[in-house]
Amino acid sequence: MERKILITGGVKSGKSRFALEMARKLGEKTLFIATARPIDAEIREKIERHKKERGKEFITIEEPIKLAEALKEATHLTAVIDCITLWLSNLFFELPDDQREKEIKDFIETAREFKGYIITVSNEVGWGIIPENRLSRLYQEELGMVNQKIASICNEVYLLVSGIPLRLK
Amino acid sequence: MERKILITGGVKSGKSRFALEMARKLGEKTLFIATARPIDAEIREKIERHKKERGKEFITIEEPIKLAEALKEATHLTAVIDCITLWLSNLFFELPDDQREKEIKDFIETAREFKGYIITVSNEVGWGIIPENRLSRLYQEELGMVNQKIASICNEVYLLVSGIPLRLK
Amino acid sequence: MERKILITGGVKSGKSRFALEMARKLGEKTLFIATARPIDAEIREKIERHKKERGKEFITIEEPIKLAEALKEATHLTAVIDCITLWLSNLFFELPDDQREKEIKDFIETAREFKGYIITVSNEVGWGIIPENRLSRLYQEELGMVNQKIASICNEVYLLVSGIPLRLK
Repeated sequence: MERKILITGGVKSGKSRFALEMARKLGEKTLFIATARPIDAEIREKIERHKKERGKEFITIEEPIKLAEALKEATHLTAVIDCITLWLSNLFFELPDDQREKEIKDFIETAREFKGYIITVSNEVGWGIIPENRLSRLYQEELGMVNQKIASICNEVYLLVSGIPLRLK
Repeated sequence: MERKILITGGVKSGKSRFALEMARKLGEKTLFIATARPIDAEIREKIERHKKERGKEFITIEEPIKLAEALKEATHLTAVIDCITLWLSNLFFELPDDQREKEIKDFIETAREFKGYIITVSNEVGWGIIPENRLSRLYQEELGMVNQKIASICNEVYLLVSGIPLRLK
Repeated sequence: MERKILITGGVKSGKSRFALEMARKLGEKTLFIATARPIDAEIREKIERHKKERGKEFITIEEPIKLAEALKEATHLTAVIDCITLWLSNLFFELPDDQREKEIKDFIETAREFKGYIITVSNEVGWGIIPENRLSRLYQEELGMVNQKIASICNEVYLLVSGIPLRLK
């Protein structure tokens, strides 16, 4: 059976670890699509640390923008996407609005049609005081809408809290 | 049976859509109490877009402050209040503390006594880093307390995450 | 049976009240470990108000840093720790990194070995827009990791939303 999984939650709630555990149960080789753009030393250090922690069952590709394309090229049965949050942040900073919307639409369509397992990691970023910064507000709203769209094409959705998965769907 | 419903969650988690779906199932004509104060173009645009999306089954009234009064005048069986977050924000900016407390108390009492369906939409705003701004902290605390009070007089409470309702009560 | 309980949630979600209700059910006398450092009038006022609200079944000690030591000295059967959030904030502002890590490790070990009831209150602070301030980001991540560690040694974990406990474990 096709399994499409969304894992969401706050910062350091155990989302990535849970995604990797699921991936290890699902398949032999997993394509890990990392969306972080290594713009500074803090992020680069995180990327390298996480790659090391994942080990050799995972083939890592870095794709900060063209997520639909990266997914289309996956001939593997299991794809982990980590994470939607950084991908959307890259789209916001690097593309005009219409191209951003196109990338999002393409990804949702590609994920919907994908034959195999997809485990997508996202974040909850809209549960705090509304930010004064307009771009932060737009980003928060857009991520909320993207999470809703991904959830709607998934058959499993988990909210992680303190390392514990709460199944929502 | 009386149904009093609280729908809460983060930004763009599907709260309003879920509230409207519930309202459509519950009754023929629904009074929609919109609490947004149209202080700038961004908000005015949102209000108009949402009104259009709701369609003709909903009679919309705008009441940014006197929520208890608006609810008392409802002769309709179903009232949707969207949302507590903006209403409380209006109270904070426009009324002195004692009048704000009185408006909150009046609303809770009126909602408790209301014969019919009430669907109230609120927000979670206290799950981020504590804001440096004192007013933001007070607002966050007050909204948390108001949400608790509303939840205590409701027989159904839902937390929306990525468009999925999680029933808490 | 040993009961180790973690209660987490947003600001003013009913965490402390739920912790006290649980404590009252569990034992006669309870040691209440308050971690707030009374650095200003706003916090001092909160501490005093909460102490008064708890009443005489609770023996309050204030320990902003050495939480493991405070817990070790508890000869009482029930200990309430309120809260991890402020304790970790104190560690961040007052200790160098290695001593902070040691305090955290000591607390987790002591809590794991503790014979009796422990009710620990923490907060969710990582569900908003990622803060620009680096220290806030580090704090957010560390609190997430500490919450995960505490949850892993607990047999009951509750998420409070609008005053309603949602059992996660």
